[in-house]
Amino acid sequence: MISFADVDAAHKRISSMIHQTPILESSMLNECLGSRILFKAECLQRTGAFKVRGALNCLTRLAEQGKLPKHIVANSSGNHAQAVAYAARKYNIPATIYSTVNVSAVKAAATKHYGAKLKLFNTRKEADLAVQHAAKQEGTLWIPPFNHPDIIAGQGTLAFDALAQTGDVDAVFAPCGGGGLLSGTLIATRQLCPNAKVIGAEPLVANDAAQSLRSGKIITLGQAPITLADGAATPSVGHHTFPILKQLDAFFEVSEVQIAYWSQWLQHLLKIHVEPTSAMSMQAVAEWLGSVAKNQTVLVLLSGGNIDQSMMSRLWSVDYLNELPQLALQKHEI
Amino acid sequence: MISFADVDAAHKRISSMIHQTPILESSMLNECLGSRILFKAECLQRTGAFKVRGALNCLTRLAEQGKLPKHIVANSSGNHAQAVAYAARKYNIPATIYSTVNVSAVKAAATKHYGAKLKLFNTRKEADLAVQHAAKQEGTLWIPPFNHPDIIAGQGTLAFDALAQTGDVDAVFAPCGGGGLLSGTLIATRQLCPNAKVIGAEPLVANDAAQSLRSGKIITLGQAPITLADGAATPSVGHHTFPILKQLDAFFEVSEVQIAYWSQWLQHLLKIHVEPTSAMSMQAVAEWLGSVAKNQTVLVLLSGGNIDQSMMSRLWSVDYLNELPQLALQKHEI
Repeated sequence: MISFADVDAAHKRISSMIHQTPILESSMLNECLGSRILFKAECLQRTGAFKVRGALNCLTRLAEQGKLPKHIVANSSGNHAQAVAYAARKYNIPATIYSTVNVSAVKAAATKHYGAKLKLFNTRKEADLAVQHAAKQEGTLWIPPFNHPDIIAGQGTLAFDALAQTGDVDAVFAPCGGGGLLSGTLIATRQLCPNAKVIGAEPLVANDAAQSLRSGKIITLGQAPITLADGAATPSVGHHTFPILKQLDAFFEVSEVQIAYWSQWLQHLLKIHVEPTSAMSMQAVAEWLGSVAKNQTVLVLLSGGNIDQSMMSRLWSVDYLNELPQLALQKHEI
Repeated sequence: MISFADVDAAHKRISSMIHQTPILESSMLNECLGSRILFKAECLQRTGAFKVRGALNCLTRLAEQGKLPKHIVANSSGNHAQAVAYAARKYNIPATIYSTVNVSAVKAAATKHYGAKLKLFNTRKEADLAVQHAAKQEGTLWIPPFNHPDIIAGQGTLAFDALAQTGDVDAVFAPCGGGGLLSGTLIATRQLCPNAKVIGAEPLVANDAAQSLRSGKIITLGQAPITLADGAATPSVGHHTFPILKQLDAFFEVSEVQIAYWSQWLQHLLKIHVEPTSAMSMQAVAEWLGSVAKNQTVLVLLSGGNIDQSMMSRLWSVDYLNELPQLALQKHEI
């Protein structure tokens, strides 16, 4: 089992390698919702997302043990690709990222900028098979995106850092893809702020975690779901993350319109480039705040800020800024 | 004449009332351009733009003299409206903003959020006449957007703060609307970093300042220009700003495509919500860097981050992220 000691060790390991990203808030949003919403702006982290924490923790731990690999591989077309490329470069280890031909040009450029080789396949399945094959080579390390104790402990340092900045809060919100960030958040928060609720959010069209939590066993989605919250489109949670996710206080499923609505409002109010996956948590905040007393203080972990042009164009095609944010009164808890 | 002593006094006056906004940079952009580009992220300032500096300086100076007005008026549909509303509320003075019926819902909401009344007119001309009339009332103060010594000195505190954070640089870039920010920037930079070039940028379709600098007298555009860089669509510079603008080291006129290109890239690389008016300066940077030796260090003042949905939709309709930034080799200096 992963414990707070693992998160604490990860924190000591990686703190000097990453930015301390700021806590932001909007007086206008606070007024609209009658509570205080504190945002950890992790979109301003190196590589534009929290994923670098897990990748750095994984490699730094191996470095301490004198067990650094000769070659690193990973399969991702998103933030994990850049994180692995960045962490590998820190240790001067060649890295190869296995991705699909439809990876966006700008994400491919960022991954190459950090020095990784990019191998592109026609389908996700082919890329996944190729990385499995490559990982069998002598001296090669495959860094998984979420289902690994070192990754979970590394991602837990985000809530660790944020709670040190904010002090006690009533609830902590994070998005759920494979559950690495949310698991780490739960472990860190239970120790550092034991009275705080820990709450997750997931796209309704990619609600494998909600289905898994309802049924008590890991459910895998049949085909890759298409959602604005592409960072949370993972088809299933993992055997390391699921037992931890079961301890969540609440979990919300968010529609595509709600994801777009909060993406616009958070970009507008906070003046930062918030990914839809991160903005999604705000719908959970609005619904949760609608079910509790006024004047709560909540922490929202804004996990990343990498958005390509086609996504930006989709996000901003309709005007949601003409409807002010308000509490959502329907309740969708588990 | 406005001197550095005025900027210094403004700095002492307002520093405790505003955020110290961060300096950001992108290793990828630095690599692409072969120089170091430091960005002062003033989009993260209160009200989302630098304008609050001038408005606060104006009112705080009056407060020191025991001359605060009973009522404040201003005509603007942009960042100046929110700045005046914010500063007036700081001193508990009722404020009325004169604007046009086509003001965006979200900017109107922000202005009202800061406690100002909003009076809407069919045309800009009617709004301007109405504010002139209102300003004649006993006890009423009209805070102009740029052509006033207190406003120029207040805006000069942005370069003051930024240069204290960055240390010496080779050049400082800012956008030019009425020239308040650029004038203040020149005064502050000449004192604090006397070897640095001070360089302005303006939309090619609203190039009154460039025309004025070429002809040696203030040129006023016939009709309100339509540009993505709406914060720089002012039809003319002022008699306070023009003599200072004449001391600029270079001035660049930027096309609409170039403005959109840099808006996308800066939002993408810096993960912040940069206004097109602010992003415009990067074209001047790319052109200026193309005309000088490598390894310059430059400071870009990102003046604001208020963008409504229709502007975001226009900005992101075409993909510019598939062409990496590079030096522009043509030279458009005055």
